[in-house]
Amino acid sequence: MDFEVKNSRLAQQMQFIVEIDKLKQVLRQTLLMDASRQENSAEHSWHLAMMAILLAEYAPSPNIDVLHVIKMLLIHDLVEIDAGDTFCYDVQGNLDKALREIQAADRIFGLLPEEQGTQLRCLWEEFEAQETVAAKFAAALDRIQPLLHNQQTQGGTWRIHGITRKQVLQRMYPVKDGAPDIWPAVEKIVEDCVLAGYLAP
Amino acid sequence: MDFEVKNSRLAQQMQFIVEIDKLKQVLRQTLLMDASRQENSAEHSWHLAMMAILLAEYAPSPNIDVLHVIKMLLIHDLVEIDAGDTFCYDVQGNLDKALREIQAADRIFGLLPEEQGTQLRCLWEEFEAQETVAAKFAAALDRIQPLLHNQQTQGGTWRIHGITRKQVLQRMYPVKDGAPDIWPAVEKIVEDCVLAGYLAP
Repeated sequence: MDFEVKNSRLAQQMQFIVEIDKLKQVLRQTLLMDASRQENSAEHSWHLAMMAILLAEYAPSPNIDVLHVIKMLLIHDLVEIDAGDTFCYDVQGNLDKALREIQAADRIFGLLPEEQGTQLRCLWEEFEAQETVAAKFAAALDRIQPLLHNQQTQGGTWRIHGITRKQVLQRMYPVKDGAPDIWPAVEKIVEDCVLAGYLAP
Repeated sequence: MDFEVKNSRLAQQMQFIVEIDKLKQVLRQTLLMDASRQENSAEHSWHLAMMAILLAEYAPSPNIDVLHVIKMLLIHDLVEIDAGDTFCYDVQGNLDKALREIQAADRIFGLLPEEQGTQLRCLWEEFEAQETVAAKFAAALDRIQPLLHNQQTQGGTWRIHGITRKQVLQRMYPVKDGAPDIWPAVEKIVEDCVLAGYLAP
């Protein structure tokens, strides 16, 4: 990237746009719904943003700021460019996850013009803190999406790692708070998956 | 998907969320910025939505509705699930592109509850019509992103297909109108790419 000095703000932004292309190479444990390959974190983030549009009506507050939720979902995995994706059921990997991700946030959001980098970092921290209604709704979507993937792939990741019904329900628990009107459907999907033999009882 | 009848609205929405997973399998001509593989349309859509957040300040109107732009960008390629991605420089493929995409829109948006499907279809039609400021800004981003990919891959798709400077400038032309403050940077990138031998003069 090589613009004139007067354009250095735009040059920084372009450099960031180039940098985040790497999220397309961060592989998640989740398989695509036809089980053909692992999902990457960029397309996962797209899917979540689509879900925010489609399911906004189930947010606990009718005044939910959908743009705010979408921004959080689009950027929530950017730190994985440096820190990698940590499998949610990996106890060891989750011990130092927070530190690795904070260092990643310093570097990645630091590429942007300062006030813009701070804005994006605040969104990421809000998502991580799980205190606001928007962050809780965003997290609920982030749980429901892989549930659908595991259902569609006849238990995909669950089977590979021997995950049980109890572990999945625990993992899904934020849906109860973040998108309560979807919780019954989540419970139904989990029970259906147990009955179908996709998930250990 | 098998919910109770009272939840049929949510069941339709979940079915749509499952259906659009297929966008992750639609390959574009564009290569990832490290040239390791072709980009798919889902991760491309994520990248564009990120660009809308990052570059909103360059929209021609300070009152641009960023949520509206992001929604358009997230859904603008959904019709490719049925119609496939048509390479922008493929004259033959572009002849029947419109018809293929309209049929795809009928089927795909038709999966949703009627009023929600209509809302999304309207967004897609607005993007296609290229009449509103939001649609023009969205289209500008959709042109700038592959330009960056081709720059980063030392001419990636251009070299494979023998694309010339004139063709690229023509393809980039909507940036002039949709994001005029970015146009000088686009011209500079194109000229740099010619000088570097990435693009035929």
